[in-house]
Amino acid sequence: MNSYEKDKANLITRLKRIEGQTRGLQRMIEEDKYCIDILTQVSSVLAATKKVGLIILDDHIKGCVRDAVIRDNGEAYIQELIGVLERFIK
Amino acid sequence: MNSYEKDKANLITRLKRIEGQTRGLQRMIEEDKYCIDILTQVSSVLAATKKVGLIILDDHIKGCVRDAVIRDNGEAYIQELIGVLERFIK
Amino acid sequence: MNSYEKDKANLITRLKRIEGQTRGLQRMIEEDKYCIDILTQVSSVLAATKKVGLIILDDHIKGCVRDAVIRDNGEAYIQELIGVLERFIK
Amino acid sequence: MNSYEKDKANLITRLKRIEGQTRGLQRMIEEDKYCIDILTQVSSVLAATKKVGLIILDDHIKGCVRDAVIRDNGEAYIQELIGVLERFIK
Repeated sequence: MNSYEKDKANLITRLKRIEGQTRGLQRMIEEDKYCIDILTQVSSVLAATKKVGLIILDDHIKGCVRDAVIRDNGEAYIQELIGVLERFIK
Repeated sequence: MNSYEKDKANLITRLKRIEGQTRGLQRMIEEDKYCIDILTQVSSVLAATKKVGLIILDDHIKGCVRDAVIRDNGEAYIQELIGVLERFIK
Repeated sequence: MNSYEKDKANLITRLKRIEGQTRGLQRMIEEDKYCIDILTQVSSVLAATKKVGLIILDDHIKGCVRDAVIRDNGEAYIQELIGVLERFIK
Repeated sequence: MNSYEKDKANLITRLKRIEGQTRGLQRMIEEDKYCIDILTQVSSVLAATKKVGLIILDDHIKGCVRDAVIRDNGEAYIQELIGVLERFIK
């Protein structure tokens, strides 16, 4: 079971767009496009990828973490969540 | 002319890997993989994308910006560079 | 009641150090210190401040959020948590 | 010589405000304020500190780095700048 069931289609659509953007970036580099235009696109990929992360974090907390708290106080799940937050906030 | 000529192959390789990771993320979601494993992969994509940004920033400063400073004091290029740094540091 | 009771002394110590660093930064600027040395110190303040945020996030999830989930499913607290994560991950 | 001469007063004012915010954070913790209110303030300190970093980066590039490029091609200054950007973009 996953916590992001209701967001699956939304997440796939977002990831397909990010995949397309990274392919677009390869093309821009092959075609010698201007650095600043490439960097602007890179910052778009970062923002879009963070948004995907936030959606999954949201679902995970509302789903897996909440269920674990109700089931057994959730110690392990909360510890794991903190670990992943440290990867995003550094 | 671009400033990242010498890093083109390196950048394409990195972007192909990021593209593969975003495809991997779609598959993980379709296969209902565990949220934390997905989030860990999302944070990898972020780190890899920032690295691509840093390489291009490096080349851009050493190339376009430096050339512009020598040519005409570089006012416009430096302004544009600051604009893009604001997108990365926020 | 707060969730960070056990970390209060630790957090105050960290914040006092950050306060000292920001005072140090003012002195560096008044004394015309080299930009890169100042920027390195600024990046230290950022890292130290994020660490404070992570400690409070950790305590908040283990305390307030967990309590709320057990009490009433925690809908409001989780929503509020997501809101604050969006401020840190952008 | 520094590159941020014209922004000195502005930077000191901003840093004094950040110093005040970090003192405010200590008070909030001593007074057991709500975690989310503290975290919101922490995210303000982060944003304000990044802004200080961006102002100095801007001045540094327009000043020290540009001067170095005109003087001797700026190799060392650009390398050092990239190093500090890596600290901010990670």
